[in-house]
Amino acid sequence: MKAVVFNDKEGLTLKNNYSKPVPQKGEALIRVSLAGICNTDAEIIKGYMGYNGILGHEFVGVVEEVNDEDKSLIGKRVVAEISYGCDSPECPWCAVKNYRHCPERHTLGIWRKDGCFAEYLTMPVNVLFEVPDNVTDEQAVFVEPLAAACEITEQLHIEPTHKVVVLGDGKLGLTTALTLNAQNLDVTLIGKHQNKLDIAKKQGVKTLLLSESESMNNFDVVVEATGSVSGFETSLNLVKPRGVLVLKSTIATGKELNLAPIVINEITVLGSRCGQFAPALRLLKNNRIDFTPFISKIYPVDNAIEGFEANKEKDSIKILLKF
Amino acid sequence: MKAVVFNDKEGLTLKNNYSKPVPQKGEALIRVSLAGICNTDAEIIKGYMGYNGILGHEFVGVVEEVNDEDKSLIGKRVVAEISYGCDSPECPWCAVKNYRHCPERHTLGIWRKDGCFAEYLTMPVNVLFEVPDNVTDEQAVFVEPLAAACEITEQLHIEPTHKVVVLGDGKLGLTTALTLNAQNLDVTLIGKHQNKLDIAKKQGVKTLLLSESESMNNFDVVVEATGSVSGFETSLNLVKPRGVLVLKSTIATGKELNLAPIVINEITVLGSRCGQFAPALRLLKNNRIDFTPFISKIYPVDNAIEGFEANKEKDSIKILLKF
Repeated sequence: MKAVVFNDKEGLTLKNNYSKPVPQKGEALIRVSLAGICNTDAEIIKGYMGYNGILGHEFVGVVEEVNDEDKSLIGKRVVAEISYGCDSPECPWCAVKNYRHCPERHTLGIWRKDGCFAEYLTMPVNVLFEVPDNVTDEQAVFVEPLAAACEITEQLHIEPTHKVVVLGDGKLGLTTALTLNAQNLDVTLIGKHQNKLDIAKKQGVKTLLLSESESMNNFDVVVEATGSVSGFETSLNLVKPRGVLVLKSTIATGKELNLAPIVINEITVLGSRCGQFAPALRLLKNNRIDFTPFISKIYPVDNAIEGFEANKEKDSIKILLKF
Repeated sequence: MKAVVFNDKEGLTLKNNYSKPVPQKGEALIRVSLAGICNTDAEIIKGYMGYNGILGHEFVGVVEEVNDEDKSLIGKRVVAEISYGCDSPECPWCAVKNYRHCPERHTLGIWRKDGCFAEYLTMPVNVLFEVPDNVTDEQAVFVEPLAAACEITEQLHIEPTHKVVVLGDGKLGLTTALTLNAQNLDVTLIGKHQNKLDIAKKQGVKTLLLSESESMNNFDVVVEATGSVSGFETSLNLVKPRGVLVLKSTIATGKELNLAPIVINEITVLGSRCGQFAPALRLLKNNRIDFTPFISKIYPVDNAIEGFEANKEKDSIKILLKF
């Protein structure tokens, strides 16, 4: 099968004859329809997590085979939560379906598990979710980053009167701002690019150019979605004393960070990663967010490497791969 | 009056003829009996906060004068919360006595307010607390760091079944471990110095040498009390996924910090500063912590500079100044 593979020796390559995976007991074989490039994929290519294998963790596909008694998923359109765990009854993480913290976990295209940038992948049936009929592939492919945005309110009680800011107008920041807005929270998106801010503005989010926000310092919750050290420092300025700074992207190192303001202003820094799919699917089913303007271009799998190049461009938001 | 003064030009000096302060409306004039050197004082001498003036914020003294109608405090032994604010009814911080976050605040010996390493100081009556009769000066002088340790459970609900670790066996770590222990929490103090760990151990705290803790990674709450970058990194290893890392000391910069584990493990980093005095005074009144073994040496004010030198020594815990 065709597969987009990264390894230390060859870098990123498109393979035309990669072995098709075989579903183990409890797993489904899924034919990928559409997949999305995430900035985490770009980080992996730079060495993040030391991962080698098929890339990709955002997809929608159709189940072709199930290695289990219950075959009811065959033919269904599905998405998959990206981590699965040991599923031992003694694992406190697997017991509450928080597979991403299981010490024995596998994470699609990131950690000990081939990803979805391929014609086929396998995943355990218990992390699959059927896509509602009224949700197109072009919307369903956003479920994983959408679930990551929903994770914020799973971890943190944001009150309706709280003033929330999302810093960064890339795909992560846009998705986060629209998701919090879809939960009726008072959210402002701050970024550097008017054209990107406008995508959120058209769907009801308040927006500000970074240059207009310089004297602001009174937000209850600030979500850092730039992934830069300067974004982290700006976030510390935007949040009020005793407020919460949600760290949604891994901060590139290479510069010293001054953590003293965290103590002086008694800030809570909350690391936030992936999320569960059920609330994200509800948002999609109820059509609360329109991801159409996110899609910069759809590349056929044969041009996947070109798609990765396009993902680096400043103007691009989401690059999709069609299988 | 005698006063221990820091300024950029002369450094740290003992002045013998500093002007005695005059209490403004609502303030008391306090004669200092005993004061404690904190590592924050040492940081100020290195330039922290850009502070110039009389140093010191830990003291116990006797009220000699009150510039107010109510003179009932005259002759009483008192301690003082170190920050006071604008006290405007519109200030959300002053309204709940959280003066330390008032944007117009003054902080004793740290920010816009002469400190307590002098024969006299003035403070607003509304931040003074009478010392219970059964609490000696040598115990009462610890109320400020004790309140800072109590602040942790003001900010964070630590459950009785949670496993808590305090990292660092200096005065901050010892005070924090003993305070959490005095609240019946399951606390382990980790440090490098058996003689310091023993102080906590004798009062019922579990202790471990750092070298014995290397494979541990499952604490619900970790309090970073070393003030070092390596301590921060060790804390990130000790805390379990979705756990809380309480940042109790300002981290010295000069090294790059990798914040990715905060996101991957969804850690909450909670900055924690000073605290309110009421719960600390209750602990002292009820004799829940014995600070006697903390006292490395008491210097008369005339030898204050020598006391600052002694504070730098590895074996010293708390240096007091007698007025």
